[in-house]
Amino acid sequence: MHDLQNKVGAPPGTVIYYGEDHKEKVKITLIEYNETEVVEKDFYDLDECMNHINPILVKWINVDGIHKVDLIERIGKQFNIHPLTLEDIVNTSQRAKFEDFDNYVVSMMKMIYYDTELRSEQLSVVLMEGMVISFQEVHGGDAFDMIRNRIRTGKGRIRKMGADYLAYALIDAVVDCYFGILEKIGDKIELLEDDLISNPTKETMQQLHFMKREMIFVRKAVWPMRELINNLERSETELIKPSTDIYLRDVHDHTVRVIDTVETYRDLLSGMMDIYLSSVSNKMNEIMKVLTIITTIFVPVTFIAGVYGMNFKYMPELESAWGYIIVWLVMLAIIGSLLIYFRKRKWL
Amino acid sequence: MHDLQNKVGAPPGTVIYYGEDHKEKVKITLIEYNETEVVEKDFYDLDECMNHINPILVKWINVDGIHKVDLIERIGKQFNIHPLTLEDIVNTSQRAKFEDFDNYVVSMMKMIYYDTELRSEQLSVVLMEGMVISFQEVHGGDAFDMIRNRIRTGKGRIRKMGADYLAYALIDAVVDCYFGILEKIGDKIELLEDDLISNPTKETMQQLHFMKREMIFVRKAVWPMRELINNLERSETELIKPSTDIYLRDVHDHTVRVIDTVETYRDLLSGMMDIYLSSVSNKMNEIMKVLTIITTIFVPVTFIAGVYGMNFKYMPELESAWGYIIVWLVMLAIIGSLLIYFRKRKWL
Amino acid sequence: MHDLQNKVGAPPGTVIYYGEDHKEKVKITLIEYNETEVVEKDFYDLDECMNHINPILVKWINVDGIHKVDLIERIGKQFNIHPLTLEDIVNTSQRAKFEDFDNYVVSMMKMIYYDTELRSEQLSVVLMEGMVISFQEVHGGDAFDMIRNRIRTGKGRIRKMGADYLAYALIDAVVDCYFGILEKIGDKIELLEDDLISNPTKETMQQLHFMKREMIFVRKAVWPMRELINNLERSETELIKPSTDIYLRDVHDHTVRVIDTVETYRDLLSGMMDIYLSSVSNKMNEIMKVLTIITTIFVPVTFIAGVYGMNFKYMPELESAWGYIIVWLVMLAIIGSLLIYFRKRKWL
Amino acid sequence: MHDLQNKVGAPPGTVIYYGEDHKEKVKITLIEYNETEVVEKDFYDLDECMNHINPILVKWINVDGIHKVDLIERIGKQFNIHPLTLEDIVNTSQRAKFEDFDNYVVSMMKMIYYDTELRSEQLSVVLMEGMVISFQEVHGGDAFDMIRNRIRTGKGRIRKMGADYLAYALIDAVVDCYFGILEKIGDKIELLEDDLISNPTKETMQQLHFMKREMIFVRKAVWPMRELINNLERSETELIKPSTDIYLRDVHDHTVRVIDTVETYRDLLSGMMDIYLSSVSNKMNEIMKVLTIITTIFVPVTFIAGVYGMNFKYMPELESAWGYIIVWLVMLAIIGSLLIYFRKRKWL
Amino acid sequence: MHDLQNKVGAPPGTVIYYGEDHKEKVKITLIEYNETEVVEKDFYDLDECMNHINPILVKWINVDGIHKVDLIERIGKQFNIHPLTLEDIVNTSQRAKFEDFDNYVVSMMKMIYYDTELRSEQLSVVLMEGMVISFQEVHGGDAFDMIRNRIRTGKGRIRKMGADYLAYALIDAVVDCYFGILEKIGDKIELLEDDLISNPTKETMQQLHFMKREMIFVRKAVWPMRELINNLERSETELIKPSTDIYLRDVHDHTVRVIDTVETYRDLLSGMMDIYLSSVSNKMNEIMKVLTIITTIFVPVTFIAGVYGMNFKYMPELESAWGYIIVWLVMLAIIGSLLIYFRKRKWL
Repeated sequence: MHDLQNKVGAPPGTVIYYGEDHKEKVKITLIEYNETEVVEKDFYDLDECMNHINPILVKWINVDGIHKVDLIERIGKQFNIHPLTLEDIVNTSQRAKFEDFDNYVVSMMKMIYYDTELRSEQLSVVLMEGMVISFQEVHGGDAFDMIRNRIRTGKGRIRKMGADYLAYALIDAVVDCYFGILEKIGDKIELLEDDLISNPTKETMQQLHFMKREMIFVRKAVWPMRELINNLERSETELIKPSTDIYLRDVHDHTVRVIDTVETYRDLLSGMMDIYLSSVSNKMNEIMKVLTIITTIFVPVTFIAGVYGMNFKYMPELESAWGYIIVWLVMLAIIGSLLIYFRKRKWL
Repeated sequence: MHDLQNKVGAPPGTVIYYGEDHKEKVKITLIEYNETEVVEKDFYDLDECMNHINPILVKWINVDGIHKVDLIERIGKQFNIHPLTLEDIVNTSQRAKFEDFDNYVVSMMKMIYYDTELRSEQLSVVLMEGMVISFQEVHGGDAFDMIRNRIRTGKGRIRKMGADYLAYALIDAVVDCYFGILEKIGDKIELLEDDLISNPTKETMQQLHFMKREMIFVRKAVWPMRELINNLERSETELIKPSTDIYLRDVHDHTVRVIDTVETYRDLLSGMMDIYLSSVSNKMNEIMKVLTIITTIFVPVTFIAGVYGMNFKYMPELESAWGYIIVWLVMLAIIGSLLIYFRKRKWL
Repeated sequence: MHDLQNKVGAPPGTVIYYGEDHKEKVKITLIEYNETEVVEKDFYDLDECMNHINPILVKWINVDGIHKVDLIERIGKQFNIHPLTLEDIVNTSQRAKFEDFDNYVVSMMKMIYYDTELRSEQLSVVLMEGMVISFQEVHGGDAFDMIRNRIRTGKGRIRKMGADYLAYALIDAVVDCYFGILEKIGDKIELLEDDLISNPTKETMQQLHFMKREMIFVRKAVWPMRELINNLERSETELIKPSTDIYLRDVHDHTVRVIDTVETYRDLLSGMMDIYLSSVSNKMNEIMKVLTIITTIFVPVTFIAGVYGMNFKYMPELESAWGYIIVWLVMLAIIGSLLIYFRKRKWL
Repeated sequence: MHDLQNKVGAPPGTVIYYGEDHKEKVKITLIEYNETEVVEKDFYDLDECMNHINPILVKWINVDGIHKVDLIERIGKQFNIHPLTLEDIVNTSQRAKFEDFDNYVVSMMKMIYYDTELRSEQLSVVLMEGMVISFQEVHGGDAFDMIRNRIRTGKGRIRKMGADYLAYALIDAVVDCYFGILEKIGDKIELLEDDLISNPTKETMQQLHFMKREMIFVRKAVWPMRELINNLERSETELIKPSTDIYLRDVHDHTVRVIDTVETYRDLLSGMMDIYLSSVSNKMNEIMKVLTIITTIFVPVTFIAGVYGMNFKYMPELESAWGYIIVWLVMLAIIGSLLIYFRKRKWL
Repeated sequence: MHDLQNKVGAPPGTVIYYGEDHKEKVKITLIEYNETEVVEKDFYDLDECMNHINPILVKWINVDGIHKVDLIERIGKQFNIHPLTLEDIVNTSQRAKFEDFDNYVVSMMKMIYYDTELRSEQLSVVLMEGMVISFQEVHGGDAFDMIRNRIRTGKGRIRKMGADYLAYALIDAVVDCYFGILEKIGDKIELLEDDLISNPTKETMQQLHFMKREMIFVRKAVWPMRELINNLERSETELIKPSTDIYLRDVHDHTVRVIDTVETYRDLLSGMMDIYLSSVSNKMNEIMKVLTIITTIFVPVTFIAGVYGMNFKYMPELESAWGYIIVWLVMLAIIGSLLIYFRKRKWL
């Protein structure tokens, strides 16, 4: 709910961090590679990192933490990144988007992960000539681990291709992580569905509502991705080579598939609300019916007992030796015929 | 629910099979034909199959089973199919799509069939110069039987036309099989509808929910077909000759008709939920009304009986010889007038 | 529900009739006219009909019955109609569409009429140079009667204009017949609405559901008409002269109006479901309230009667001469004050 | 509901009036003006009117009543208006639309006004070189009064501008009158909303339904206006001068605002249905709760009274001198603790 | 609700103020600046202000109050603003829009702020060569305070750039203020959500409805902003320099984010209605169940007590010394077994 903070009236291009507070130092990881060589090193200082940059290799600079605004600004100055881009990079409430500048293109995305609850994290990927700079918040980071491994081991085609392919791979990793989240949600939906029909409780309903909110959350992160990918595909930047186009088409398909699944789950969840309400009402009706039937059965016979409890002087039945036994029989007959009637009408 | 598995972080173009486990050998069926000649043979080995290929005939290679990833990769290498396409062919959670490559076009589709429940199967049709390669999962396969028969017997125009017509015929067969499924669902809807009004039970509701899920399932398979056909029609590939265009227009119409029907059924099903709820509530109301009326009728007369059960010394009515009979008459009068009142207000 | 039959796997262009069985002979009606002359004749044989054709007049061949597939095929061969078109003409589950061929254009439509229930009938209008061929199922036919009369009597401009105007007139007649159906449905909605508020019963609900299904039925027939007309207007065929364009614009407006009305009725009907549910629940609440109030009034006084029915030795009230009368007064006071309280809170 | 009448099968271009019957004579009002001069005169005959026409002034001919079909046809012939346009002018069930002919453009609109209920009236504005002809049904007419006054008094720029500005002014007057209607509906919504929460009755619900129907009615009239204005703006007719464009943009904005408001009201109204249902159910629940609590409180104590009403020989409590008073205390204690319990759980 | 007032039939371009009545004088604030210099002065008279205008500085004239129509008209004449624009500036029910004139462009917007309830205020920003004129209603004004401060202190790039950047900054300030409002609403939604589940009352529902109306209000103000920004971006005016384009893209992103949030909140709110209804019904069901169970438990035993209260001569049980104690045991056994049964079925 709180992803709305914005600096009302602050001059645009002001780089202000609005995420949670972090004390950690920001780690800068530099990976340089070509088909034959890989160099990987961590830094806690920008200048040191700059000294290690090798112009002939593909460079990936990953910045782990966006809460040190001055560092981000220095990176911006170093690589000639527009202040508005820097502002977006540190603004954790940013919507996913793709932007095209003269000397670079940038994709901002939301990674989703489960902590105690569903949380999102801001990821920005800046693609420049021969270099990718990625920015992440301080928590996560495992979305890119597989790619680091691929570079280290030279699996797949990543080492043979340029920085544009690396940028694609990072974006693809984000979309892939949506699949993991959706699979978990899918499992929870299936569990919940069984609960719903067998034993609907107030907790089931709260869980249903909670899952609906999760879907709204996921949807808000996922929907703008389609636009991002579309803009990326349509971009006329020369930083992305035609040979990478086919891979963009692939990530486009994945995004559409994610959105499809999100919409399907939303459909399922709103159908489940109906089932919940219907199940609760069925259960309640069942209870009320049984209780009311019990009452209804005893009301006429209690009346009869009341009649013969009256103190009239002249009540011939009371004198009869068979009176008591006949009244019992009559009362049992009434109870019996009511039961048969209810059973016949399938109320029991 | 489980059609989401994806290989998070795995390099794109990695051909990994994620469907159910199969031990069966993969059967490769080669059908070659022209207007005068038909040759048909089954193989369990790619090289053997390659030796039988006759360059001057139209060739249809059908691969029955996509779980042997290495075979798929060898086919890919043999016919120069892009790794991303191969990845999609074996990825059973793929969405229907059409893609245009330099030397081939590929259509991925979902065939739907009833097993114990509704299931979908991945079908891919690769159209190359003079050749169609189709890939299916191991279960099904009867969707294409009719086409095989048409080729064998030379019925229709299939033998007179090229590989593009064959590819069209395969896609058309998939769309046609949707009609069969929808007809079955339509029959089930009609049955359910009668149940709903005459005797709504908890089971009816569960069935309704189940059918809604089936429709979501079918819808998810069918919707992307429209896009597939659109892209196919708009494709500028030279593999599809202008003479086939009119047939594509026909399969386009069929797809639209399928989608229309799916939407109509969804409308019907959501209307039926309303009817179910209304019927259940009507039934329950009926019960509660009758039960409450019984109680209500006896409450006043039980009170009267209670009054004359009191033990006051001085109660003149009790002494009267007619007291008892008059009280009975009064009580019957009360019951009678309540019944008349309820009938008059149409509560009974 | 059963308008889905399709020939799974049958070769496209196979002319198979899937409608209901008919034994009737197919009647072919030939009307030829120009501004000064009209010739009209019925045939039961194609060749005979062909002998009567006069090349200088505008020709309208109406085929009444599409169940004799061989006749349709012979007509197709005679006038050079594509097999796919013939297949669509006899396929009674066809969706409305317009298609453009080299030597002709064809419009397939659904006429709707009331039999015991709402039914649709397949109509196809083929426009060629100087000739219109129309195909209908065997039942109906009165949609075109007015046009036949117009030709016979020379009313309106139909005799002065060419075959394209005739084709337009036939399509316009189909759209016009939708207005008639919608008017009838509108009347039924109005009747139902009164019922809903004054006396909602289970039957009202079934009728509501039935009308909703009718609207789905009508909608399915009417919606594709818009597309048909759009395609017709945008068609670049030379068979339709510019002077007819203005009439197409007119039938386009009518179609939009029909669709508007259909959507309005759908809105009305779904609002009526809410009213029904609310009325039923109001009625039920009213009943339960009255019944419960009766019970509630007697429960306290029955308790008091119970108290003085106890058999304790020492109960001073019982000895008092005024005891009985005072208890009655107390009980009446309780009943009275409860009634006043309920009335005050507007529960009665 | 009855705005559907159409002449099934009648030849297009047949000018048939389908509105309500009127006996009144049709009044033709001719207003001619330029910047310095205004002439205004009423006629009941066309020829007379034609004699008064002054070629150098801007002419506005207003026809008050469209039920005299022959007059409309004569006007059509006089000014060379296409029969299809005439047909639309007298067809009171016409949808709003704009049409572009060689020598004129025509806008058909619906004016809405409150009679006993909401009613619509057909208005048509034909713009020709130097002349506007407007047609209205016989009832209304006050929508144009303000414009007549503006012409008479020379307020605003109307006298300085041509016939196209006059046509714009007439259309703008129609859109303006929608605002008036919407304001009234808005007031009614606000009144209804208070009712809904404070005292929901069956009548409130009927009123709600009635207002929903009114909104459907207004919506049906207003929605096509957007298209009308769009077509008007995009029209390439030379009858509308570029200097008028800015005014068309203005009326376009007004139309969008009207549609916005209509949609907002629809949102409000459907939210109100929920509130109504919830309020009714809250009220009912409150009643049932109180009634049931009364019953529940007396049931246990009535049981106790029943116990000591039993006639067993050996019942020690009955003999005790304190028995009666103790039973009373026990019963009061039960009633008291139930009341405390209910209050504690906030059921009272 | 009352933002609909329009002057039916009044000539367009008539500048009429329809907002609330104000007696205050209208304050005109002139701020002139370039990179090195800032001049700021308040006036209550236009001529005085005109005398202070310095042609070589960027000029921002802010008019605080639009209720003095004659002043607005004089400003219009002074700066050559079209009467239709002036009409829109003072029309407080105007929808947000952007318009492009020869010598200026104008953006009309709604600022939203919390007074006792949510209120909107009309803001218009006219951009001319080297000058921005902004018009606001008399209440607010703090939306622009931050920008005034930025100009005064020279923070950000505002002093270095031209009038187009100033216009952008004003529009951005309006969009930013939406974030503040949405954040407040978000907090209220979260509070309400806790209430809903823990303790749903009639007040919660009214609050929910109230918030829904607030969202409709916000939505109505925010949606047209997207269009405004789109038109602004697409505008071909030379008043906006290419260097400002990137900032427009930024405000475009913010607008989309605002709309996203609005839609998310709407989703949440309609989900909350469901929860409310479900919670209320759960609570009610709980009550009714407990009450009915109490009644049901005592009904059979009361019947038994009634039986032994009968006055038959011959009732052997009554004579037995153990009779009374046995009946008590039987009655307790019945109560006990009913309680066990209810517990077992989880009704308690």
